[in-house]
Amino acid sequence: MNKVVEFMKAEKLKPKPDPTALQFGKHFTDHMFVLDYSQDRGWHSPRIAPYEPLTLDPASLVFHYGQAVFEGLKAYRSPDGRVLLFRPEQNVKRLNDTCKRMCIPPLDEEAVLEGLKQLIEIEQDWVPDQEGTALYIRPFIVATEPYLGVRPSNAYKFLIILSPVGAYYSSEQLSPVKIYVEDEYVRAAKGGVGHVKTSGNYAASLLAQKKAQELGYDQVLWLDAKEKKYVEEVGSMNIFFKINGEVITPELNGSILKGITRQSTLELLDHWGIPVREERVSMIDLYQAYQKGELEEVFGTGTAVVISPVGELNWNGRKMVINQFKTGELSYKIYDSITNIQYGKQHDPFGWTVEIN
Amino acid sequence: MNKVVEFMKAEKLKPKPDPTALQFGKHFTDHMFVLDYSQDRGWHSPRIAPYEPLTLDPASLVFHYGQAVFEGLKAYRSPDGRVLLFRPEQNVKRLNDTCKRMCIPPLDEEAVLEGLKQLIEIEQDWVPDQEGTALYIRPFIVATEPYLGVRPSNAYKFLIILSPVGAYYSSEQLSPVKIYVEDEYVRAAKGGVGHVKTSGNYAASLLAQKKAQELGYDQVLWLDAKEKKYVEEVGSMNIFFKINGEVITPELNGSILKGITRQSTLELLDHWGIPVREERVSMIDLYQAYQKGELEEVFGTGTAVVISPVGELNWNGRKMVINQFKTGELSYKIYDSITNIQYGKQHDPFGWTVEIN
Ligand SMILES: Cc1ncc(COP(=O)(O)O)c(C=O)c1O
Ligand SMILES: Cc1ncc(COP(=O)(O)O)c(C=O)c1O
Repeated sequence: MNKVVEFMKAEKLKPKPDPTALQFGKHFTDHMFVLDYSQDRGWHSPRIAPYEPLTLDPASLVFHYGQAVFEGLKAYRSPDGRVLLFRPEQNVKRLNDTCKRMCIPPLDEEAVLEGLKQLIEIEQDWVPDQEGTALYIRPFIVATEPYLGVRPSNAYKFLIILSPVGAYYSSEQLSPVKIYVEDEYVRAAKGGVGHVKTSGNYAASLLAQKKAQELGYDQVLWLDAKEKKYVEEVGSMNIFFKINGEVITPELNGSILKGITRQSTLELLDHWGIPVREERVSMIDLYQAYQKGELEEVFGTGTAVVISPVGELNWNGRKMVINQFKTGELSYKIYDSITNIQYGKQHDPFGWTVEIN
Repeated sequence: MNKVVEFMKAEKLKPKPDPTALQFGKHFTDHMFVLDYSQDRGWHSPRIAPYEPLTLDPASLVFHYGQAVFEGLKAYRSPDGRVLLFRPEQNVKRLNDTCKRMCIPPLDEEAVLEGLKQLIEIEQDWVPDQEGTALYIRPFIVATEPYLGVRPSNAYKFLIILSPVGAYYSSEQLSPVKIYVEDEYVRAAKGGVGHVKTSGNYAASLLAQKKAQELGYDQVLWLDAKEKKYVEEVGSMNIFFKINGEVITPELNGSILKGITRQSTLELLDHWGIPVREERVSMIDLYQAYQKGELEEVFGTGTAVVISPVGELNWNGRKMVINQFKTGELSYKIYDSITNIQYGKQHDPFGWTVEIN
């Protein structure tokens, strides 16, 4: 891949949306990064082009057999006006891991990072500066070859699109969520594709999410496909439990996503000397800990929310109200530390942030 | 949905490809059927329009979260020149079952059938007449709303595209395939979406298919996700076994597709008075039957192939060569009967065929 990224400027720039009323994933910026793949040229023609519709043959493989993968990260505006990325190299690496599982040719990670940075530099005025807002970054790849046989595509498009997003929480208190432990529907099985970010995983989750909402819950906690006994993850978050002073999170077992916020949380806890284990977590053990009063905190981790405290878990009608439906101390401390690093408000001892010059 | 389908004729018609050298899913006809969905209008504006690229926002949900579903059937040319469909109402019904699981608003089945028939009527010159050829029909739906949140789309496009396809077999002998029994990768789990035709299932199967091919096999036989002991199905076929004069096929257990060729095979066997059972089939039982010399025939069923005799199964290095790698008598008889009905060469006692006037 050619590292000099061509820039085709949009003729007319869009008005920026009201920064105090941003929604998630509704508004997109003026430009996008594009890279094409063909069998003879490999990944080629990196460019930053006006944000515009894709024109694809109706037989394009992405529409039929779902060969599509993506990533999600954010650019943050620091109080002194700098623009920061959080561990972007981890997203690019995970994108390549996903590509491998989904039979998509791997990308040159450095070149993609370079393209990403150039795009953010060009679109830097789109990084909002209100408390808690950010510029959401969505890299994705779709299979574009027009062909109806089931096999890997011979042509792909890689794009990065950007969307300014509002604060997830309206106050510093965070807001605990109610989670339904799903024991009928399954998201992913070992040997499947649940550990990578491919589009079909999310379509497969919609019906369970709908059911949970109808029952008055915000999100679903998935269990393992085999025995429906062990905790996997939430819709787009990994999950952590604080039991009797110790923190545990499900180990990476081949069917849950290796979240970057999860990894950062583990490193942070380690840095603080707080005991934390990655292991198989069973619902029955959790319930017993709850009954003994030892289930102190439950929280999800993910790019969108950073930390999402869980106020209630419903497992087969057994309701567990966690920490009186209040954000736990540790949950808040992790949230505070990670967001302070992301927004450049605090020294970053881990070298997680990357500044856009 | 309005049942009067508007027809916008293509300005220039394409030359038809050489009917003796048709490939699968490479050439598309002059027109396609289109139907749009929006929240306020429901499914609306059915039309037959020139085959042309789709113009979609890069944030369209199909690219990110894989809300995409499809069907596959064929139109056949009878020796006396008529054009026949095979059980198309079954495909439309299955499409709606798939929609339900994938949180896509249901279609008016009759109106879709009507649109399909009108499209085939307009494109009837594209139905090839060489032995074994057909016009492949691909109805599909994609989520088109530009939005990055994980939830069902508020906008969809339903299309039907058509592709003339060549004969699957070059001789009347059929050609047995070699099948690798996959015990590492998993296609679908109970509680998941393996029983419906959604795009992500096929992307998830690519790596195992690649592995099988590298090992010298044509296709993969999937096992159950839970114990990896029980037979599910092949890439795009259901599977049947003839053991000691009796036919068995895995029961519809929630993770295999309800194939229409499978159903037709069951009905045909029943009609002939040949004992057939739908039940759980374990690999160990199959292997024992093989060792006793009782595994007489193995065949796959699906729209593309009708019947695909299996000549070899490799289960963990244990190779089972079936019927000396020759097409079995029953396999051939089913193939012959179904294709004769499809091509209108034989009386159709079941009322399976639908003629395009
Ligand atoms: C299924 C799933 N699990 C977990 C996560 C959290 O990962 P990360 O912390 O990298 O955002 C996400 C979101 O990316 C996800 O989609
Ligand atoms: C996964 C899967 N199984 C089985 C089949 C066979 O179904 P049918 O006989 O309806 O073509 C197909 C093809 O449609 C398929 O995709």
